[in-house]
Amino acid sequence: MSGDIKKMIDFKLILNRVRETKPLIHNITNYVTVNDCANILLACGASPIMADDIEEAAEITSICGGLNINIGTLNHNTVKSMIAAGKKANELGHPAVLDPVGAGASRLRTETALMLMGEVEFSVIRGNISEIKTLASGFGNTKGVDASASDKVTEENLESTIAFAKQFSQKTGAVTAITGAIDIVADKERAYCIRNGHPMMSSITGTGCQLSAMTAAFVTANMECVTEAVAAAVIAMGLCGEKAFERLGSLDGNMSYRNYIIDAVYRLSPETLERGADYEVR
Amino acid sequence: MSGDIKKMIDFKLILNRVRETKPLIHNITNYVTVNDCANILLACGASPIMADDIEEAAEITSICGGLNINIGTLNHNTVKSMIAAGKKANELGHPAVLDPVGAGASRLRTETALMLMGEVEFSVIRGNISEIKTLASGFGNTKGVDASASDKVTEENLESTIAFAKQFSQKTGAVTAITGAIDIVADKERAYCIRNGHPMMSSITGTGCQLSAMTAAFVTANMECVTEAVAAAVIAMGLCGEKAFERLGSLDGNMSYRNYIIDAVYRLSPETLERGADYEVR
Amino acid sequence: MSGDIKKMIDFKLILNRVRETKPLIHNITNYVTVNDCANILLACGASPIMADDIEEAAEITSICGGLNINIGTLNHNTVKSMIAAGKKANELGHPAVLDPVGAGASRLRTETALMLMGEVEFSVIRGNISEIKTLASGFGNTKGVDASASDKVTEENLESTIAFAKQFSQKTGAVTAITGAIDIVADKERAYCIRNGHPMMSSITGTGCQLSAMTAAFVTANMECVTEAVAAAVIAMGLCGEKAFERLGSLDGNMSYRNYIIDAVYRLSPETLERGADYEVR
Repeated sequence: MSGDIKKMIDFKLILNRVRETKPLIHNITNYVTVNDCANILLACGASPIMADDIEEAAEITSICGGLNINIGTLNHNTVKSMIAAGKKANELGHPAVLDPVGAGASRLRTETALMLMGEVEFSVIRGNISEIKTLASGFGNTKGVDASASDKVTEENLESTIAFAKQFSQKTGAVTAITGAIDIVADKERAYCIRNGHPMMSSITGTGCQLSAMTAAFVTANMECVTEAVAAAVIAMGLCGEKAFERLGSLDGNMSYRNYIIDAVYRLSPETLERGADYEVR
Repeated sequence: MSGDIKKMIDFKLILNRVRETKPLIHNITNYVTVNDCANILLACGASPIMADDIEEAAEITSICGGLNINIGTLNHNTVKSMIAAGKKANELGHPAVLDPVGAGASRLRTETALMLMGEVEFSVIRGNISEIKTLASGFGNTKGVDASASDKVTEENLESTIAFAKQFSQKTGAVTAITGAIDIVADKERAYCIRNGHPMMSSITGTGCQLSAMTAAFVTANMECVTEAVAAAVIAMGLCGEKAFERLGSLDGNMSYRNYIIDAVYRLSPETLERGADYEVR
Repeated sequence: MSGDIKKMIDFKLILNRVRETKPLIHNITNYVTVNDCANILLACGASPIMADDIEEAAEITSICGGLNINIGTLNHNTVKSMIAAGKKANELGHPAVLDPVGAGASRLRTETALMLMGEVEFSVIRGNISEIKTLASGFGNTKGVDASASDKVTEENLESTIAFAKQFSQKTGAVTAITGAIDIVADKERAYCIRNGHPMMSSITGTGCQLSAMTAAFVTANMECVTEAVAAAVIAMGLCGEKAFERLGSLDGNMSYRNYIIDAVYRLSPETLERGADYEVR
């Protein structure tokens, strides 16, 4: 909860819409965390389809409500499918989410993410601060971020990171979600700073991928308030990370934690989401 | 249990044979639920091998007892491997199961499923009613199913769906397993109507894929009673869905449910299976 | 614990180094157990990256500390990436682990494993006795193992298997890890015989794959004592299999067991590892 906020997020409405409309989400994603992405989509009330062959990618997009593209185990074959699916989503007015996993870690990933941003209009780009900074350096006319800035979002650099996120949103036309210890969800005008989550979430593979998939579902079901839908998804994920942590027994480790997070999404009520949300608008 | 049945299923014999012969099952399946398929095969007493490269597909089939082909994340490269593996299974007299995931959702999936049915003789085809109807429309000389019929199997359309399943089995030569709220397992002469299962099973990705894998194991170990082996696998999966649901705590969601179902398969005794089976012969 | 040992393993040092240095491990591995490999790497304190496209394989290797190559779902495209990554690891002095899954089960797997051993210098080769015997028959000037020897490592053939493992290490230059009921970790001079583990570990898919991934992390963090690091990883995995088994409730099956093993790795303290280790040096 937070005091001085310019625009309340209607968590109940946003989550209920996901549950009621059960959006079908087309995922072209990595093979590491794909099962978790499918199960978290089901947990939040949506439905997953995974299809990455060029012969069906666009067609599958057309029967879905939203698209989630994740470059986690990038493969030059599926890049074509990503473009075809993305263009089809644009054509149909479906939201598309980009998760630029590992942008900056290899030239292929960076270039592919940038190329996708050039070919497809994304509604949301979600990554960690390093990935988003990499994309900001390479995309459009931005001159890149302050090279000396620490990559970690802290209270000290929060203001400048928010400004960066808003600027990135303006350049790309996408809502930007930078997730980490403090999450920032921004469009060109306003930003939500989110303090939900738990450090143990980084001990599981794929919490970011899962969030991107869930974000696609939240946005698809709430197209008239995309920024708030993204913020709600980020808050929901963080809150479920907190709830799952509380549930851990003395023998539970990261695998049980993984299961408990998705369980918590399955059990998440609109009231719990609203009550547990820890955010402010900047 | 059921009263008026024409042919009893010998659950103890069927399950014990799986456990005793530990059939090795070759799976060419999707990357979303492949881990769950491997673990449910182990849970029921069988062993999994996954191999989809054309250079080894037929060879791996030849060292296995049965084959499970699933088109969940279809890829034009692996289609060739599916054909090669299927033909080898036919040549060796090994049972082959087809899971036409998403037939009807894209042209590629529909055409691939139909093409596979033309190239390979399947012992079992398992899908939901929409998938099987799609295949029935496109395969052989069938004129397709009543387009106005609801896709959901209900008490009202049960009789006609059973007739459809028997007809589909006659056309294809395969045992047909149509799974949903009510499951139908039919050969050309008789059908098992199965009422095991729980609605929450649809909140997990891959219960269908898992069932197809387990069906391949049950059939491989029980070649002299294929229809009953398929029915036993479907009943076992549904019963484990019930057992797993009973086990759910207040914080458990779909991920724990997924784990509990496979756990229940691991713990399933022939006696429990026999006692919990809820089916009738039509 | 063991009495007459020539060289103690400093478990505390080895495990603490993994936790402190958090090695980044590049995995080119199968899509069946890849998620488990990622999560066990995180559980032991390391970080995973999966990347198998030829356009980035070597580059990703260069930003990592160690490499884990697993041929579980071999694909002729990724073989090139395995070679490129392996050569880069060699060039940079990074340790590389080979898990020859299914060597002997198909010509492709056997030949690929042997080819990789010719192109890349592996620090560790980890497999079951059949896989290692297959490689020994085909590699270099070895005349192969006694064809009549049982494949299972028992107290009776332990001495000859240890000799075989040492000889295989001498030929390949790699530390050999043969895992099964009794595990053997050998370099050309000495062997650790390890009796940790539990038979139920074979009821889960991928405990071997997970161990190979974790081995890469242990070795990367402990390059000055590679053989001991491999032995420590094998012991840690086996011990966690024991701990997880103790934790099983009456309804738990192989899926919960899978989760509990990785949980146990997450919770494993250096003290518990040292206390629970059951090995001898030969």
